[in-house]
Amino acid sequence: MSMVKVEIRGASAPVAHVILNRVDKLNALSAAFAAEIRDVAGALKNRQDLRAVVLESASDTAFIGGADVNELGQLKSPADAEAFIRGLHQMIAAYRDLPVPVIAVVDGYCIGAGMEFVAACDIRIISSRAVFGMPETKLGIPSVIEAALLPRLLGWGRTSWLLLTGENIDAATAQAWGFSEFLVPPADLSATVATTTEALQQAAPKAVRDQKALMRRWENLSLEASIEAGVEAFAGAFSTPEPAAYLAPILARMARK
Amino acid sequence: MSMVKVEIRGASAPVAHVILNRVDKLNALSAAFAAEIRDVAGALKNRQDLRAVVLESASDTAFIGGADVNELGQLKSPADAEAFIRGLHQMIAAYRDLPVPVIAVVDGYCIGAGMEFVAACDIRIISSRAVFGMPETKLGIPSVIEAALLPRLLGWGRTSWLLLTGENIDAATAQAWGFSEFLVPPADLSATVATTTEALQQAAPKAVRDQKALMRRWENLSLEASIEAGVEAFAGAFSTPEPAAYLAPILARMARK
Amino acid sequence: MSMVKVEIRGASAPVAHVILNRVDKLNALSAAFAAEIRDVAGALKNRQDLRAVVLESASDTAFIGGADVNELGQLKSPADAEAFIRGLHQMIAAYRDLPVPVIAVVDGYCIGAGMEFVAACDIRIISSRAVFGMPETKLGIPSVIEAALLPRLLGWGRTSWLLLTGENIDAATAQAWGFSEFLVPPADLSATVATTTEALQQAAPKAVRDQKALMRRWENLSLEASIEAGVEAFAGAFSTPEPAAYLAPILARMARK
Repeated sequence: MSMVKVEIRGASAPVAHVILNRVDKLNALSAAFAAEIRDVAGALKNRQDLRAVVLESASDTAFIGGADVNELGQLKSPADAEAFIRGLHQMIAAYRDLPVPVIAVVDGYCIGAGMEFVAACDIRIISSRAVFGMPETKLGIPSVIEAALLPRLLGWGRTSWLLLTGENIDAATAQAWGFSEFLVPPADLSATVATTTEALQQAAPKAVRDQKALMRRWENLSLEASIEAGVEAFAGAFSTPEPAAYLAPILARMARK
Repeated sequence: MSMVKVEIRGASAPVAHVILNRVDKLNALSAAFAAEIRDVAGALKNRQDLRAVVLESASDTAFIGGADVNELGQLKSPADAEAFIRGLHQMIAAYRDLPVPVIAVVDGYCIGAGMEFVAACDIRIISSRAVFGMPETKLGIPSVIEAALLPRLLGWGRTSWLLLTGENIDAATAQAWGFSEFLVPPADLSATVATTTEALQQAAPKAVRDQKALMRRWENLSLEASIEAGVEAFAGAFSTPEPAAYLAPILARMARK
Repeated sequence: MSMVKVEIRGASAPVAHVILNRVDKLNALSAAFAAEIRDVAGALKNRQDLRAVVLESASDTAFIGGADVNELGQLKSPADAEAFIRGLHQMIAAYRDLPVPVIAVVDGYCIGAGMEFVAACDIRIISSRAVFGMPETKLGIPSVIEAALLPRLLGWGRTSWLLLTGENIDAATAQAWGFSEFLVPPADLSATVATTTEALQQAAPKAVRDQKALMRRWENLSLEASIEAGVEAFAGAFSTPEPAAYLAPILARMARK
């Protein structure tokens, strides 16, 4: 039985819901589970009509409880360890590299590689029940791979404390520290996801994809080069029908005034 | 009639107030308006006695309502689009490159290129009526040029949500997310600006200019190189009379104790 | 008489408390005091059993009141100034380069080079009496050396205001702006330090050192290179007995369920 469910919702502007469903193990990331999650992204990557991906859990107890501790216990050599950690990285990178925005929806525990996965998404919506932590140093290993994204959300000081001590933070702290964009009661998660996907569906599809691609370029460019990349992206948009199509109703509304 | 008013205040330590005055269009940035704003910075750049620039609106409805949508609608080719967006960038860069601190004072709407302009200023003071947003994806275009500065203020996650969804944020969110340094009731804007310009006027003029120049260098340097740049700036200050002049009253006060 | 006291606490997992004790001068950093503080780090650097360093003041009035203003007043040339500022940098770098986490505990004034020193620590715990500021521009000099770390904690906008105006901020602002990880009443400082050092003592010692070293590498690497550095660090951990030793009790607990 599959550990990942995929539901495509919204006929004219489809959004893929990727639902993590290894709930008896708190969605702990085994090598096989990570590979299955990764492959789902591979299947979504080339859907030209796709507008967004929502990444969520089938359970309200855990988004992802961490790496599978039983499998960590079976890593007997640096080579074993490298293969395992590369598998987690490839899973995360598959979502980070999707051409459409990825929204992480977190209810319950979101630990270790789970927190890194969420950090690699474009937008984060968390419930007041969410709990985050990077406990690796308590397991005898450092926090690695996409943990390197945490300073971009939390700043360096809070990331340093989180990774060195291995302590957890609650949802309010995660929100105050910039890890999430929306913190809502559990009952409001669905509505907040809907508001967010609707905003993305109302925006121009190519512009949204261009925006994500441009932000990825900014991460590795100086400000000067980022500005040039932006000029290029802006000019490129005007070789498509999108600006005219999306400006038309606004101009018509202004003309009527 | 000019769309930009300039008032120089404070005889001994002058501060230039640049007042955006295309209020019937909510200060929307047409190519001509942007060029006029840019030229004001060009005229201020070489005033050696200048201590700061305050950038504000003649209206409390909008700081800048965005790029002029009518002009966006007339861009018919990538070449047109490139010329337009470069004009906005040159306007913003002219203020970012001023040798003195630039303080943005935001009341009302501050949208699109307006938000980018404010992000490029050194200090931001906003009123509780301020509203910010980057709606470009809703117009069929990506947010570009100095939008690349937003992650340095907001972090990457909040910037990502803002740019991808095109949704607005209110003043309290902007303040909590690090976009502004001061959020005050509209009635307190002037007093907060005065407190800030007075602090800059009391500081040593060359040290303030050196500080801004050094921070600009830090943006493109590793920590190690940033420290070397700082050592150089510190040593250089002692080839001027400023340290002795500004330390003297402090040392005299300590000697009297 | 020594201006720095060192106490090693915790026999099996020692933590060094470095206590700044030039309290009659508000711990102002003279060249000699800075050299003594630096040398303490030099003596701690090679203690293989050390788990953490706690940097604190013998006084509740000031952590560090700033650079020694009398010595600043005696700097008569760029060469004098360079020697003085390099001394402060070497003191800060000696702690930043320690292989174990350094926790700064701030009560009272923490000004200028003191704030830079704290920014260079790994974890910051401050009391509600703490006051921070970078007043250098008021002294005729720019804020330099490890002030370049402030944008990583505060963001660029708040850092810009702080350095350009030379104004102070209170503890609540420092906490809200991301400068500190914990803000507590003065009476709770010791307990918060204890909780933090205990968390570090419970974590695996090599993993904690690896984590700090990895974060230092991240500062100068692209995301792609940071991920590769992480894969390497993770694989390397499995050439030591730590993962097996720290995973064993967790696996045993899970097996009993």
